[in-house]
Amino acid sequence: MIERVCIVGAGVIGSLFAGHLASVCEVTVLTRRREHAEALNREGLRITGRSERQARVRAATDPSELPEPDVVIVATKASGLRPALEALSGHYPRATVVTVLNGLGAEEMVREHGDWQIVSGVTFMSGTRHSDTHVEYILDTETWLGPYEDIPFERVREIAELLESAGLKVEALPDLRPAQWSKLVFNAAVNPVAALTGLPHDWHFAAEEDPFDLGHLVHGLIDEGKAVAASAGIELHDDPWEMNVLATRRGSAHYPSMLEDVEARRPTEIDLITGSLLREAERHGVPVPLHAAVHALVKGKEASW
Amino acid sequence: MIERVCIVGAGVIGSLFAGHLASVCEVTVLTRRREHAEALNREGLRITGRSERQARVRAATDPSELPEPDVVIVATKASGLRPALEALSGHYPRATVVTVLNGLGAEEMVREHGDWQIVSGVTFMSGTRHSDTHVEYILDTETWLGPYEDIPFERVREIAELLESAGLKVEALPDLRPAQWSKLVFNAAVNPVAALTGLPHDWHFAAEEDPFDLGHLVHGLIDEGKAVAASAGIELHDDPWEMNVLATRRGSAHYPSMLEDVEARRPTEIDLITGSLLREAERHGVPVPLHAAVHALVKGKEASW
Repeated sequence: MIERVCIVGAGVIGSLFAGHLASVCEVTVLTRRREHAEALNREGLRITGRSERQARVRAATDPSELPEPDVVIVATKASGLRPALEALSGHYPRATVVTVLNGLGAEEMVREHGDWQIVSGVTFMSGTRHSDTHVEYILDTETWLGPYEDIPFERVREIAELLESAGLKVEALPDLRPAQWSKLVFNAAVNPVAALTGLPHDWHFAAEEDPFDLGHLVHGLIDEGKAVAASAGIELHDDPWEMNVLATRRGSAHYPSMLEDVEARRPTEIDLITGSLLREAERHGVPVPLHAAVHALVKGKEASW
Repeated sequence: MIERVCIVGAGVIGSLFAGHLASVCEVTVLTRRREHAEALNREGLRITGRSERQARVRAATDPSELPEPDVVIVATKASGLRPALEALSGHYPRATVVTVLNGLGAEEMVREHGDWQIVSGVTFMSGTRHSDTHVEYILDTETWLGPYEDIPFERVREIAELLESAGLKVEALPDLRPAQWSKLVFNAAVNPVAALTGLPHDWHFAAEEDPFDLGHLVHGLIDEGKAVAASAGIELHDDPWEMNVLATRRGSAHYPSMLEDVEARRPTEIDLITGSLLREAERHGVPVPLHAAVHALVKGKEASW
């Protein structure tokens, strides 16, 4: 039985989990900023858009101020993962920790900080943050969960069922890596191109009719990413180019998080997303000149601030 | 004897020519905007920075309102070239037309509009435009001139001497293409990277110590450009990588025009600069994946406005 879930990181994704789960279990929220925790305790959490919720949650910046949960969902940004794990370290020893971050390697970093059972996650949900206590749910797409190390698959299924009962779309997979890699290859193509052009993820990303159309670059990035995945022995769960084409055909163009970061002049997730791919490419000796190029350009953009 | 020079396009480069030449001959200026011509007629043209001049010029938007010149210097932006030539067409039949634009192909476009003798030019001067009548001279670097088609080299030298007597640095070369291509390969690497990162042309562009440093991308772009030049049978006048390293070691970082265009959300010269290189690459069957990538990204950026 899962009676209490702690959400770590109340950005868009964390808030969507918290707002939904509060309808089926007790939800605690661990935030980085004290004002954020205070606002959540005072006003609760409001979800609008694809679903409408007004959730009561109990929030704090220190895990010892919150009751022990059965499940911890870590949904920080890449840059917030290490500080969040340092705060969690030594707490909640009986909890199962679910990682829902972009890129690769979050599970290894969780393991460095504790002996928790770990579930790997990847989510395709998206939303827009309106305030500390209000998130708009934009894409009600799936979250995929899979076992990490020797956790029983039954436990993964149990968490998946809880999320489903809360109104979220979820799938439990015996091996998550094909899905993680599909998302990585997709993100590593779409996010830097959006960040560098200023375009939301719209039709330009799939356009290949004219020889100079942007879709050729996106396709080239995806082909490099697929070559890295193949060399790493991964059979992709979904074809990232098809994911790209399908996503651009949705009604409203999604604003990739790296574009939001660039517009707000915040550090981006480029080291996690493209960096993961560059490291795997080097390990397997796969040339990835286009990924190296967009990586250098996004890093240059960060350096210009 | 050159007694009168008409400057077409009074941006930074055109203004630097006009402001200096007015000390040794009569100068007329053809502008696109009527207010610009009126301001020049009223206030004259002020040069500050590397040299200080206050020049009297006679300006208009219609060539028939100006006395016939011996030499026309066309210094428009790429996007302004065709309209300027349409205005010039049928006028000044005895004048020698000097083209001083980025990229390749300006001379062919001039030829389409008239039977003038043509001199090819490329300039490394730079400056900052403070108003319609005030330009600051930043880099007092050279202008190179060379013959186009069957114009006598003596005529090229005569124009070079005039510019020199006006206080500008100039060199007459029997074949300008090696210099044009050096500048093209240099510009095609530096301008899009500046436009996409927001960085002025600073030390990042030459940094190659860390495997992820931006200099690797700049070097990769330059190597592709050099391969295209070699296939086109051009022996470069200067090594573009050395030009890049030298320029980043100057005291103050230059703000490339494509970065200025992007910040002002104006159409950039990407089709002229990188486009020239992509067309030559295709003609000679040279792969240029990095140039294709930055071209697609800058076009995407333009599409995002």
